[in-house]
Amino acid sequence: MVVLDGKKVSNDIKDEIAVAVEKMTGNGDAIPHLAAVIVGEDGASLTYVGSKVRACQRVGFDSTLIQLPSDISEQALLQTIDELNHNDAIDGFIVQLPLPKHIDTQKILLAVDPKKDVDGFHPENFGKLALDMETFIPATPFGIMELIRRYDIETSGKHVVVIGRSHIVGRPISILMSRKGYPGDSTVTLTHSRTQNLSDITKTADIIISALGIPEFLTPDMVKDGVVVIDVGITRVPSEDHPKGYVIRGDVAYEALLGKASYMTPVPGGVGPMTIAMLLQNTLLARQRRNAV
Amino acid sequence: MVVLDGKKVSNDIKDEIAVAVEKMTGNGDAIPHLAAVIVGEDGASLTYVGSKVRACQRVGFDSTLIQLPSDISEQALLQTIDELNHNDAIDGFIVQLPLPKHIDTQKILLAVDPKKDVDGFHPENFGKLALDMETFIPATPFGIMELIRRYDIETSGKHVVVIGRSHIVGRPISILMSRKGYPGDSTVTLTHSRTQNLSDITKTADIIISALGIPEFLTPDMVKDGVVVIDVGITRVPSEDHPKGYVIRGDVAYEALLGKASYMTPVPGGVGPMTIAMLLQNTLLARQRRNAV
Repeated sequence: MVVLDGKKVSNDIKDEIAVAVEKMTGNGDAIPHLAAVIVGEDGASLTYVGSKVRACQRVGFDSTLIQLPSDISEQALLQTIDELNHNDAIDGFIVQLPLPKHIDTQKILLAVDPKKDVDGFHPENFGKLALDMETFIPATPFGIMELIRRYDIETSGKHVVVIGRSHIVGRPISILMSRKGYPGDSTVTLTHSRTQNLSDITKTADIIISALGIPEFLTPDMVKDGVVVIDVGITRVPSEDHPKGYVIRGDVAYEALLGKASYMTPVPGGVGPMTIAMLLQNTLLARQRRNAV
Repeated sequence: MVVLDGKKVSNDIKDEIAVAVEKMTGNGDAIPHLAAVIVGEDGASLTYVGSKVRACQRVGFDSTLIQLPSDISEQALLQTIDELNHNDAIDGFIVQLPLPKHIDTQKILLAVDPKKDVDGFHPENFGKLALDMETFIPATPFGIMELIRRYDIETSGKHVVVIGRSHIVGRPISILMSRKGYPGDSTVTLTHSRTQNLSDITKTADIIISALGIPEFLTPDMVKDGVVVIDVGITRVPSEDHPKGYVIRGDVAYEALLGKASYMTPVPGGVGPMTIAMLLQNTLLARQRRNAV
């Protein structure tokens, strides 16, 4: 069993990005600049955004954090986005989700200039993903693809079973794995809450990508020998044994699957750390595309 | 075995659209106006465009046919599209494909205002389809959905196997059938040229949607009893017995499957006639969305 070590791979990617930035600086090219917009004071959101800004600093990007009050009007937030769209110094920006309830998230995401949409959430970019055009691939599926690529896992003609049809993981990864090329060319089955006899399907899978959010849902009786398991689930499970009062669990019964899987992502330390690395990668791409014009 | 009679259903839809147009006229609302752009003199393309214009006339739409010479420059075609985008009298328009080789098709499709893109080929509209937002669904998958709806075929939790991953059929219908709602909520497997052991997969299907282009490819040994078969294949097969010198064949061995399928589309007369009806439906939607503003 090979551990798909997202922590290590994400650090490798950050190192590579840092080298690319140094080279850009050496050439006198502009370097990538990511802006992050956060509305309100939600603790988890502040933590995520803080990690993203620190990651920028680590690889040598410029970064800007825009903190807005939780009672900001939709109109004022749209105004901020419009300014970022037109600010020539900014290559890409993200709007940290979730947004307060009085703001229409869809309207906000549609307002982001697709050329600066490094989260890949704008429908134009999502459509380009489905139509095999140049785009920004959302960070989580992009991270999964990159893990598969770096461990050189065969995907052509393989049966990939995706569990969960969310807009940010299940839907895009199901499309990406069935596109032409590598990683891709897989036969993909997308399963979800309405799927019947799920374990009959997972048993036929060469690769399982689970983004369900039910801790230790995937057990050895549901998979065949040699399966590749990518676990996108992250759930806090109460635990008195830990000072924080909880432990993080994935969708996969990791220990139980050790004897059956050929490759597996741990949780934490698998797909999770890849997402920030891929956000940086998208920001680098945004800058490179501008430099290439 | 129930025949999914696309000819009849498409006529029903056209009748319904004609009634809607009469009502719009009665209310003093603007009525739908479709424009079609054709470049060059390709016989098949001229036939298709002619059918679309005649269908507009039948349901009471205004229509405009713009015929351009095959040596028109890309710039001049983009200019035509820009004019249609800004022409307030036009609700929707299509650019008949294929375009001559000196024109970048992708660039042309990207130039169409998504609000008037009644073919649903613009990536923004395609992304909205994948993200469950209001959009224009491309005519062929929209027609398949409508056939399933009108015959009240159960789809929730059913296993749908799609054969072929084209941008205009396989990819969008695989997304649509796995979205929430009806028709949808299916477990969807997307298969294609790289798929291994295809018949093992089709044998587990409750619904098969084939858009492969290989005549009579799907045979009884590949399906289970009671399967629903939607045949999107249209291939001309040489035949000395017919005055035209060919017959039209689908992907499905229709006669051989009569004893096994529960529902099946004939070719011709199944999915084919639905496409123009759904183009009209999209044009009606485009007008209604404008009237609603």
